[in-house]
Parts: sequence; structure tokens; C-alpha cells
Amino acid sequence: MTDAFPLDDRGLLLGDGLFETLLWTGGDLPHLDAHLARMAAGCETLGLPVFDLDEARALCRAAPGEAGLGEVRAAVRLTLTAGSGGRGLDRPSAPVPRLAATAAAAAVVTTPVDLALASTRRNEGSPAARLKTLSYVDNVLARAEARTAGADEAVMRNNHGDLACAGAANLFWVAGGSLFTPALHCGVLDGLTRRRVIAAARALDVDVHEVASGAEALDAAEAVFLTNSLVGVRPARRFEGETFGPHALVERLREATQS
Amino acid sequence: MTDAFPLDDRGLLLGDGLFETLLWTGGDLPHLDAHLARMAAGCETLGLPVFDLDEARALCRAAPGEAGLGEVRAAVRLTLTAGSGGRGLDRPSAPVPRLAATAAAAAVVTTPVDLALASTRRNEGSPAARLKTLSYVDNVLARAEARTAGADEAVMRNNHGDLACAGAANLFWVAGGSLFTPALHCGVLDGLTRRRVIAAARALDVDVHEVASGAEALDAAEAVFLTNSLVGVRPARRFEGETFGPHALVERLREATQS
Repeated sequence: MTDAFPLDDRGLLLGDGLFETLLWTGGDLPHLDAHLARMAAGCETLGLPVFDLDEARALCRAAPGEAGLGEVRAAVRLTLTAGSGGRGLDRPSAPVPRLAATAAAAAVVTTPVDLALASTRRNEGSPAARLKTLSYVDNVLARAEARTAGADEAVMRNNHGDLACAGAANLFWVAGGSLFTPALHCGVLDGLTRRRVIAAARALDVDVHEVASGAEALDAAEAVFLTNSLVGVRPARRFEGETFGPHALVERLREATQS
Repeated sequence: MTDAFPLDDRGLLLGDGLFETLLWTGGDLPHLDAHLARMAAGCETLGLPVFDLDEARALCRAAPGEAGLGEVRAAVRLTLTAGSGGRGLDRPSAPVPRLAATAAAAAVVTTPVDLALASTRRNEGSPAARLKTLSYVDNVLARAEARTAGADEAVMRNNHGDLACAGAANLFWVAGGSLFTPALHCGVLDGLTRRRVIAAARALDVDVHEVASGAEALDAAEAVFLTNSLVGVRPARRFEGETFGPHALVERLREATQS
């Protein structure tokens, strides 16, 4: 497998590529095919040729063992770049994507998360805002803001002022017995756990609203939680001045979507 | 020098880093210190430690010769990443930036440029929009849109609908004898040639306006041009339905800012 990327790689030079973060349970990669399907759809959006799905599967399955993590819970990071190219923004006429996978230990997270509102915005006006591209510095900056504020994770808005997501998770809140989450057009990754939470809520006859809404919605919420593939559902304990206790619906959604 | 980046490099994984593109004239790097000062300011904005300026100078000076381009006009690309780090968005407590420079041939460009309006937006709500970060996929997408439209380069707006820049250049236009360019807060790189063009225009007693303005301003312009460090001033021949001929002020600014 690839163990380094050359200096003419467009992923390194321009953030021209995609990634997925997958949970390895110590023997299995649940939702592997959903991750690869999302990456393939992202290639289409970015105008990149679709990668070799079998190669990607094999890389993801091999990465935990290569890192000595085959028997434990781990995070697998699959990275796809637009491959090598000439100078400048224009891609070569026939780009050859470059794929690699690595693994890192990933403990089970049981603590709630403290959230802070970041000033750095999501770019709702780019198709990349709905993808896990290698151009992720805005989220890096938002997370750093949250850490500086003494929180664990950032809540990001878009340039219109509407809620979008956390630094590395989708965002949900509960109000009036209904479930709310920012609509994809707000600059939101189409998260796999987000999809499963929405489906689980509907199966529980809970109304789900995908909305464009300012941060004041969180102040009025009964509960706030984050979702991603590594942690699943993670309740928030604090958002700015608001605090939240355990909430029955959040707990049911957490249990319903555990990998 | 570094000739490949490892799989745990944050520039590769998250676009967490900066770049500069410098003109090598076949013996000199004009404005080298201005480029390095801008990169150092970018490190401060991103929260990265400032790199070793002497090392960066040496890398930039050596790159053309290493590529067999020491005697000719070339583009030097200086890449700085946040270095190696653990999994996820959080930087290590003491990041060690990684630097590399490469060179590619860069012919003198004498043709005017055909421009198309891109739908992909600049993210005016991120500090990264004023920097040359490694998270450049939005500009890659905008350029690809322009190519698909049969043009050479994209004109990008921000999410508010205001003009920002081209894919790989700053944007200027002339109207009523005055010079206009998008204000930095619109999501605009603080271009070195942009600065020199503004100074040159003021030295010619031309009014310069840094503005937030929609794309209709270009329809009404007498002339439109782009600037960057490689090409200097490049007049536009076409923007969507509008065409532009040679313009005396643009030519004077081009001559006044040649490297």
C-alpha cells in the first residue's frame, strides 16, 4: 500500500480529494459499503473518476491489522486524492486517483460533549460543503476555536447564519417532542449516522425536520446531540450558556443506531 | 529536502497548511521576502508556529535548479503543512510544520483571458478565505466550471453574491476612470500583485475602490483584468457575454508592476 504521497499529489497541494472515517469494531467494518458509496458519489460531484471499490475495501480491511489494532476498536481513515498532476488548478485530462488507508485506536466515548459556537463558517455555496473533502481547514479552525473556549467541539454556522454542523459531526436537537437537524443545503455533510438517526426517529413516530435555523434554536432546545460514524450518538452537556441533562429520546436514538 | 509527505501529515489529511507560488525569473525570485512574510502571517492566523525563514528561502532558491529549470522562467511552489499529527481535527500540542518546494516551467503569458462566472462560492466567513491554504478544492471546482463553459478561468463570488476573485488570481475592473477590486472581507486573498497594482494606480492618481459588489459591475466595466505573481497583470478579453479590448490604464498598470 501507499505509505507516502509525492509532492505533485493534488490532495496534498490543493486539498483535491475525499476521505471517509470508518469504525473498526475489532473484527468488522459496519457500513463499509455505505462509506464507499458515499465516497464514490463524492468523486462524481468533484468530477473525479470513481476509484476501485475492491481495492478500497481491501485497504480498509487491512489497515487495522497493519497498525497492530486488528483485535480492538479503531478508526480507519480512507484517503482518496485526485492523484498526481501538473502545476496549478487544472486537473490532468485523465486523473489517476491515489488511495490509502490507516488506522488509529478509538476508545468508546461515553461522556457528553461541551459545545461552543465558532465564528468560522461552513461554505454553503460550494458542493464541497456536502462532502468529506481533503479541504477541511475551516473545520480545523472551528475546532481550535472551541478548544480555546474551553469546549470539546465547535458548532458551525454557514455564511447566512444558519446552523450547519459540528467540526467533525452532524448536529441534532430536540424541541417540542420533534427532532431537528440542519438541512443539507446549509453546508452539511450527508452523514451516515445522520441518515440512520433520522430513520430511527421516524420509526419511533417522531417528527423530523431538516431546517435552516439560527443558533438561537439550540438555546430553546430540550436536548442537543452530535452524530458521527466513530461515536454514534453523543449527547451535549453544554452549548454556550445552556446546559442539558440526559434525555429519553436521545438515549433511544443512541441505542437504536449503535453499530 | 522532503520529497514525499507521510500519511499522517495534516496538510494531506485535512488541508491544514499554506502555500505560496513564486516567480523564478531564471536567476532571481523577486518578492521572495514578501511571499515569506505573507506565509508567516498566515501561520499566525491559522495558529501554526512560524517556520524557519532561512530554510524556506533556501528551499525556494534550490527548487528551480533541482528541476533543471535554473536558467529559465519557472514557478516555484512552496508548501507548508501543519506536520504530522494524531487522528482527527485537533492539532498536536506542539505541531512541527513540514516545508517543501518544487518548480515547474512557466512560460510568459501574453494572451488575454476569457472568464466565466462560477457557481461555486468563496467562503467569506472563514479566515482561510484570505490565505493561500492547502484547502483549495473550491477554487479547483470553480476553475473546472470555467473550463466546462469554454473559458480559461473562473470569476468567483462569495455566499453574499459579491465578487471575490478568480480561481488563481485577484480580480480588478475599470469603470468611470477609477479602479475597482473586491475588498479583502469578501473572501479575497491579499495578493502581492494586487497590492502593487493598487499602489501603482494611486501613484498614477487613479482612484482605487476596494468594494463589495455583485457580478453586474463587470458587465458595466470598461476593462477587467486579473493579477497574480506568475503572470502579473493579465487583461480579460471576455466575461460571459461582455467583450473587452485593450485599455490604456490596464497596460500602464501592467508595465508598472512587471517583475
